[in-house]
Amino acid sequence: MGVPPAVNVYPLSNYTFGTKEPKMEKDTSVADRLARMKVNYMKEGMRTSVEAILLVQEHNHPHLLLLQIGNTFCKLPGGRLKPGENEIEGLKRKLCSKLAVNSPSFPQNWQIGECVAVWWRPNFETVMYPYCPPHITKPKECKKLYLVHLTEREYFAVPRNLKLLAVPLFELYDNVQRYGPVISTIPQQLSSLFDVKKANTDTETLTRNKDTDEGETADTDTDTLTRNKDMDEGETADTDTLTLTCNKDKDEGETADTDTLVKEYEG
Amino acid sequence: MGVPPAVNVYPLSNYTFGTKEPKMEKDTSVADRLARMKVNYMKEGMRTSVEAILLVQEHNHPHLLLLQIGNTFCKLPGGRLKPGENEIEGLKRKLCSKLAVNSPSFPQNWQIGECVAVWWRPNFETVMYPYCPPHITKPKECKKLYLVHLTEREYFAVPRNLKLLAVPLFELYDNVQRYGPVISTIPQQLSSLFDVKKANTDTETLTRNKDTDEGETADTDTDTLTRNKDMDEGETADTDTLTLTCNKDKDEGETADTDTLVKEYEG
Repeated sequence: MGVPPAVNVYPLSNYTFGTKEPKMEKDTSVADRLARMKVNYMKEGMRTSVEAILLVQEHNHPHLLLLQIGNTFCKLPGGRLKPGENEIEGLKRKLCSKLAVNSPSFPQNWQIGECVAVWWRPNFETVMYPYCPPHITKPKECKKLYLVHLTEREYFAVPRNLKLLAVPLFELYDNVQRYGPVISTIPQQLSSLFDVKKANTDTETLTRNKDTDEGETADTDTDTLTRNKDMDEGETADTDTLTLTCNKDKDEGETADTDTLVKEYEG
Repeated sequence: MGVPPAVNVYPLSNYTFGTKEPKMEKDTSVADRLARMKVNYMKEGMRTSVEAILLVQEHNHPHLLLLQIGNTFCKLPGGRLKPGENEIEGLKRKLCSKLAVNSPSFPQNWQIGECVAVWWRPNFETVMYPYCPPHITKPKECKKLYLVHLTEREYFAVPRNLKLLAVPLFELYDNVQRYGPVISTIPQQLSSLFDVKKANTDTETLTRNKDTDEGETADTDTDTLTRNKDMDEGETADTDTLTLTCNKDKDEGETADTDTLVKEYEG
């Protein structure tokens, strides 16, 4: 032990982003969500959910891929396992549903890596802890975050009602107010996985293929696979976050619900 | 991958705690510390420090061992590596100096495990980040936290000017104000290392030897190896934190300096 595994993070420009049919959220309010959680618990016992940490490199710094619902609420790609489902297989299923093109022309072979965090929900409430509190014998949810190792080139397709963002680790760090306790702590949980030497030397392995033509995504066969960096300036104040696909069928009424969700989802 | 390594955490009652000769801090103020850091940087380049995460189980919950200086400032056992020194060997050296009896009767074989966190100091200032900020080419310090796997029984001897505490993870979590960003994030960094099943089942492996006679530490051959749980009630408000050895030659003048240190040491 003692030597952390190296994680390769490839430039954002290696990847191609498009959109696909919308995938609607099951709940429109936190109350709905907790009520559904309770019903499922009665049927199936403790909920286990799995979420993916996907990283890309931009401006010499790792960025985390996040799905944005409405204007503010961000979440990791992932979701609830079916009863008895294997964690790794379940996470692959969720990644296909949320991020894959799902076409034989764009085969996707998700490499699920290290489990980097485990969070516990003691009650049917929004608050979670990175341990199961000692007096809790029947936790209601266990959420596991896995690092997913992207290969050098990937094609992503994002449901049209969601927006895919690449958020720099320095934007997440110490920003519990915006991202919640689970996502805002990811930089600390990844800190030991990066090759320390990279910080002091030329980041060659991180920036190879940087010479990729920025316009090349337009040359692919599929029209929907276009990278959309035209961020609406009024929508977000943090210019370091990159918008990779746009939320195209957002309606104003929906936004109010998800604005409430952002505060509650992650406690 | 995907299956985190199991970490065995043994009951506090397995361990024996005593005291030894004082080990004074090199700096009496934060200004002194940063000045010394700068001088060393000019001579030796980036400072690398290593710190140990040592865990014991009590009341069905993991507790972290912390050294307390004065009345409030807590730190992990560890310290600065000598130029060119191996990280693992350096951490063992520091653990022997801070925690070991250093007598042939009490051999100590530190099992240094996973690196669970890496923190960077970009400038000669107190603030650190869990990544090297992208514009920083010459960081001033890299601090690595290693999990140290204690065996079932150990003998500790703590310098008389320090106090050894066992602090529950739930006390550290989300408590940056008291413990600083490095120590308060340790629960999140350890979350994936505990065997998840333990939280749902009988914690047998965690509580074996719980039937150890609490008074047995008095039966050891060495008088100084006594466990001191007689905490001064006026000194600390958190009753969940256990005091394992007392600071016996504290003077009031010293306390003022270390009270300042607590705010500054960890930024």
